[in-house]
Amino acid sequence: MNGAEALLKTLVESEVEICFANPGTSEMQLVSAIGQTDAMRPVLCLFEGVVSGAADGYARMADKPAATLLHLGSGFSNSLANMHNARRAGSPIVNIVGDHASYHIQFDAPLTSDLPAITRWGSQWTEIAHSPEELSAAGARAVQASMKGSGQIATVIAPADHAWNEASEAAPALPKAEPLMVAGERVQRIADAISNGKKTVIMLGGMALREDNLAQLGAIADAHDVTLMCATFPTRLQRGAGRAVVQRLPYFAEQAADALEPFEQLILLGTAAPVSFFAYPGKEGWLTPEHCELLTLAEPSEDIDTTVAALLNALDIQDRAKTLHERQIHKVADDSLNPLTIGQIMSNEMPEHAVVSDEGATCGLAMFMCTENAPAHDWLTLTGGAIGQGLPVALGAALACPDRKVIALQADGSAMYTIQALWSMARENVDVTVVLLNNKSYAILNIELARVGAGEPNEKTLSMLDLSRPDMDFASMAKGLGVKASQARSSSEFQVQFAEAMATPGPCLIEAIL
Amino acid sequence: MNGAEALLKTLVESEVEICFANPGTSEMQLVSAIGQTDAMRPVLCLFEGVVSGAADGYARMADKPAATLLHLGSGFSNSLANMHNARRAGSPIVNIVGDHASYHIQFDAPLTSDLPAITRWGSQWTEIAHSPEELSAAGARAVQASMKGSGQIATVIAPADHAWNEASEAAPALPKAEPLMVAGERVQRIADAISNGKKTVIMLGGMALREDNLAQLGAIADAHDVTLMCATFPTRLQRGAGRAVVQRLPYFAEQAADALEPFEQLILLGTAAPVSFFAYPGKEGWLTPEHCELLTLAEPSEDIDTTVAALLNALDIQDRAKTLHERQIHKVADDSLNPLTIGQIMSNEMPEHAVVSDEGATCGLAMFMCTENAPAHDWLTLTGGAIGQGLPVALGAALACPDRKVIALQADGSAMYTIQALWSMARENVDVTVVLLNNKSYAILNIELARVGAGEPNEKTLSMLDLSRPDMDFASMAKGLGVKASQARSSSEFQVQFAEAMATPGPCLIEAIL
Repeated sequence: MNGAEALLKTLVESEVEICFANPGTSEMQLVSAIGQTDAMRPVLCLFEGVVSGAADGYARMADKPAATLLHLGSGFSNSLANMHNARRAGSPIVNIVGDHASYHIQFDAPLTSDLPAITRWGSQWTEIAHSPEELSAAGARAVQASMKGSGQIATVIAPADHAWNEASEAAPALPKAEPLMVAGERVQRIADAISNGKKTVIMLGGMALREDNLAQLGAIADAHDVTLMCATFPTRLQRGAGRAVVQRLPYFAEQAADALEPFEQLILLGTAAPVSFFAYPGKEGWLTPEHCELLTLAEPSEDIDTTVAALLNALDIQDRAKTLHERQIHKVADDSLNPLTIGQIMSNEMPEHAVVSDEGATCGLAMFMCTENAPAHDWLTLTGGAIGQGLPVALGAALACPDRKVIALQADGSAMYTIQALWSMARENVDVTVVLLNNKSYAILNIELARVGAGEPNEKTLSMLDLSRPDMDFASMAKGLGVKASQARSSSEFQVQFAEAMATPGPCLIEAIL
Repeated sequence: MNGAEALLKTLVESEVEICFANPGTSEMQLVSAIGQTDAMRPVLCLFEGVVSGAADGYARMADKPAATLLHLGSGFSNSLANMHNARRAGSPIVNIVGDHASYHIQFDAPLTSDLPAITRWGSQWTEIAHSPEELSAAGARAVQASMKGSGQIATVIAPADHAWNEASEAAPALPKAEPLMVAGERVQRIADAISNGKKTVIMLGGMALREDNLAQLGAIADAHDVTLMCATFPTRLQRGAGRAVVQRLPYFAEQAADALEPFEQLILLGTAAPVSFFAYPGKEGWLTPEHCELLTLAEPSEDIDTTVAALLNALDIQDRAKTLHERQIHKVADDSLNPLTIGQIMSNEMPEHAVVSDEGATCGLAMFMCTENAPAHDWLTLTGGAIGQGLPVALGAALACPDRKVIALQADGSAMYTIQALWSMARENVDVTVVLLNNKSYAILNIELARVGAGEPNEKTLSMLDLSRPDMDFASMAKGLGVKASQARSSSEFQVQFAEAMATPGPCLIEAIL
């Protein structure tokens, strides 16, 4: 048994079942060890941004880490944008990053870089293995670290010689980290605040947005006239027909400020205090109004399930939420294809328990609003703002939930960051329908350009935000990557194609020409 | 004049003419300032790996920096793999990385990360602007720093408020850094060594591989029976008919060791001592033989032009090289399409002064060998080993040299890292012919798997190195990105398509199905 084989044994014992991989020469023993390990499913991705995004999507749906296999500093750096999103999502991920053999680093060969420094930058936990045995032990510790709090990025650096040399044993799996419990006094203080008659909003994130917690929190909302709101970009929001009503904090700072203006108390549960996504000249970045008291029930790292139960107990509530979204079939507005009609059709046609990966950017909001009356589903968003997350997250979510339909709402500009995900969707034959929203521009930037007070833009300025010249044809790209694709130019065309996609398992792409 | 406008004024005065950009909200004032600056050409790229790779290709051909415009830590991290290659190439690049407004960072908004830390990791020089005036002054210093030695990555962090606030003045351009001169005694010591009758190889890198220096070094080789050799992955090698003969150090460690075995002296000129690309169990990583003395004429950072002239002077040589490559038309071996027949056709058909961006991986070597008898041309390679460099480098080279034909030899696996470059090629209508070598695998890894002693691979292991299931269709992808494309399955088909591409300006892609 070499170090690579010992590591794989430990990972499998630690209940890691899938590895998103883009290996190179320094990972060949790890590739070989994966090949020999029946219980580990390798998923080859053509670019490391797909690897990290897919691991994020998997973690959001499986509530446990996937492994990744990455090639040296360059492979890891390619994964960083979606690693950032995963970190903001609180997703557990276990990265295995191959490095040169330990004695080879001194030679500064072309691919050498300061790997420990960049893994520290991109991970909350990182360890470099100094022997074949340590490689396996580091794997066990990484799985444990990844499950701390709401979830973390844990990275093991695997020097090639420690993968190929003999290991005397494989380390055992480690127990799950103890959850961080919220003290009873804090729960009581929040219960008192909720009962004090002031206008109150509870801002939710992480596990607070799961169905069962929402049903309990909705009962509090019903009983105390409290508003439930989630952060602008939730990791995983369980919503739709039969589920409790949760507002979503708007993206633009002034709209977010308006949404929070009525409240005298803002209670945080599994999320940070709301701030604007960007700064704008003369506008407020801190969004809690001055007249509003900011209270924390639970930090993102603290245990949400027990906290919610304790809060209900403190408030003496035994019910579940009664104010629920109801199933509603939309009348499609007209035959033009736009975010509203797409959202209406989607809401009408999507099956129960679908998973939506939303990187729809400017188009996404209308679809979010229309689908509150869709059958119960999960909504995953761009948690860290680093674009290129939507397609990989859909891939990972589909692999975590093979019995559920996954819908990727994907803007054109951000699709081009990780378009390679389509190929892995085809290879793994996952049940993903990509709705590619082609509006031929970085539309959000056209809006932002006006908002930052950069003056009247000239043609040259606007060209830098424009995605036409040439127009992209995503149906052709999908075909080139092995995914069947169609184009829709009217809502009736989209209706037919989307309904067929919902009825047919396997990957497909519908390019919505807006 | 705001800080962004002042910076643009300074960059233009510093002779920066082009900016490869993928901006976001925090760069809107910079986008607007570029839009107002006639002398700055913006090139929109759909992914930051294209931005950095194109800036590298531009620098290799223009011998001066392009600017890049990148969005926060995530944008910069997406650029890192090709930034690594550029650093290994010794290419000057000036990065402008937008950041949140200085007062907004404290709020830890979703896109916030430790930007100074990652720019230090990815650059040899980095500075954060603390005022609108400093933003422009930092730009001047960055251009100066980028031109130090053989060229460096210089990064300016531009907080959004310092871009949008008023600047009292734009900083003047700074003088070019003084070159680092090699001492006369060192030149004399090397001249003595060359004259001592021992079997000698001069290992060349950087500016030593330019035509004029090679002509002089070739005269030394003629006069003293010295071998000229270049590193495995040269930044820019000027070669072909009428140019001095330079061997290339093989990639695989044992072949490289064989190539160096005969020598008693190894003289470094503008490159580091040769080491193997990766370590392999039981094989040597340090490639200078034990019986061979290692001497340094000039470090990569030292001035090569004056050193070469001084060496000729010390050796009392006035001639130019007489041993030159001769133009030769190849008889195409047969009608099968493979690296040899592609190389033969390419060598026969390519015009004078073409630029070749070689990321052909396992296919590239045969083409390199065939083209030594092609008309004079420049050969650019994957200097840092981080794949995904070939297409962006071709884009940047074409923009630096609008009058020259650029040929991108591109392997399939690495093409998928930065396939987005095709769109910018179409948008800028550059004269690039992409020869896409589709062999449906990470072929190099199949070779490496055997070489690292990972045992007999099973089907599952091999699947992780396989790019079929589904087969990729690069012609469809190119069409989707606005580049006209064709497919060739025989050498006669390739002959027709390649000849037409050489005769027709503008971007096109020939998918060679191998």
